[in-house]
Amino acid sequence: MKVLVVGANGQVGRLLVHLLRDSKEHTVKAMVREDEQAAALKQLDIEVAVACLEQSVEEIAQAARGCNAIVFTAGSGRHTGYDKTLLIDLDGAVKTIEAAEKVGIKRFIMVSAIQAHRRENWHEKMLPYYAAKYYADKMLEKSDLTYTIIRPGGLMSESGTGKVTAATDIRSGKIPREDVAKTIIQSLTEENTYYQSFDLISGEVPIEKALKLL
Amino acid sequence: MKVLVVGANGQVGRLLVHLLRDSKEHTVKAMVREDEQAAALKQLDIEVAVACLEQSVEEIAQAARGCNAIVFTAGSGRHTGYDKTLLIDLDGAVKTIEAAEKVGIKRFIMVSAIQAHRRENWHEKMLPYYAAKYYADKMLEKSDLTYTIIRPGGLMSESGTGKVTAATDIRSGKIPREDVAKTIIQSLTEENTYYQSFDLISGEVPIEKALKLL
Repeated sequence: MKVLVVGANGQVGRLLVHLLRDSKEHTVKAMVREDEQAAALKQLDIEVAVACLEQSVEEIAQAARGCNAIVFTAGSGRHTGYDKTLLIDLDGAVKTIEAAEKVGIKRFIMVSAIQAHRRENWHEKMLPYYAAKYYADKMLEKSDLTYTIIRPGGLMSESGTGKVTAATDIRSGKIPREDVAKTIIQSLTEENTYYQSFDLISGEVPIEKALKLL
Repeated sequence: MKVLVVGANGQVGRLLVHLLRDSKEHTVKAMVREDEQAAALKQLDIEVAVACLEQSVEEIAQAARGCNAIVFTAGSGRHTGYDKTLLIDLDGAVKTIEAAEKVGIKRFIMVSAIQAHRRENWHEKMLPYYAAKYYADKMLEKSDLTYTIIRPGGLMSESGTGKVTAATDIRSGKIPREDVAKTIIQSLTEENTYYQSFDLISGEVPIEKALKLL
């Protein structure tokens, strides 16, 4: 598959782009917002599209053309206001869903957050962020795309172990970003993850097997 | 009908509550957040429920019990941050939809904003607000409720004329809040507005007729 990574300059996004570039099964197109980010990726022999989630669906659709799958792992981050939470984490995600529909890309993987599907368990210091993720996920579930929604626990920078726990409802936990990226890649063609939404934390089961057990 | 007005202390909400109290066809229950607001309304012989849109669906459901319809005309307002836009204008609205479903109330009227359904026409200085309204409206449209989504133009404080233009797509315009409130009341039992979403501005057609022409 040729995979558009939306949010390719983010921490999970960067790992994902590199793993995809090195994979034998897939190729990658990295979507970033700024020309500088694009230049840095091109130097690493990575195909890049420059597009902004605050612009039109058509701009994102242009970036997506020629791809067979989209991974949305963008986020407005901690250093912007909640206006950006609404316009990027929610509306930017839904624009990307609409872009996929427009271009005819069926496979869509959303990187969400652990327990985003259960309002009563939203992280109390991050309620607005959780609300944005919740509705982005809802809109994807109500779309016609072949979606997978991955809701990782607290993200860690340390190396992955390749072993996880994946289930529709895990109350809390942590996981290295590298294992999130590997789970995304494994999910791309694992039909058992199609139309599934699940929490993901570090565990004892190899990723490939954990996804088959969902 | 007994109508729960959510956002009864807002500018449209207050007009609506008083018009409903004086109507022969309907009765009203005013939902407000603070005890002081409740006390003021009780003095006017208006039934009140105190509930907060940032609390649980169950709290809103308690307020809604015994009603036959809900009007959502709450808003976080201009003096709070976009965190509240997410948690009240969007998530509070959807919690109210869920409360309606929980209690078995089918009739639901949402007060939205002109052109909220068309992202390309969102007011450029209010993009995050428009995003919140857009997704609240989308969630209502995807619910099983008998909805009407009214998207008024710029709200004015002057007296209403009782005459409007209502259509699925009006690019811009203004309207007195009083005419919005009257349109809400007229819509409650006007079956031609069921499962309809429309823009609403001042015009030349009496409200009752304008709704029949939708």
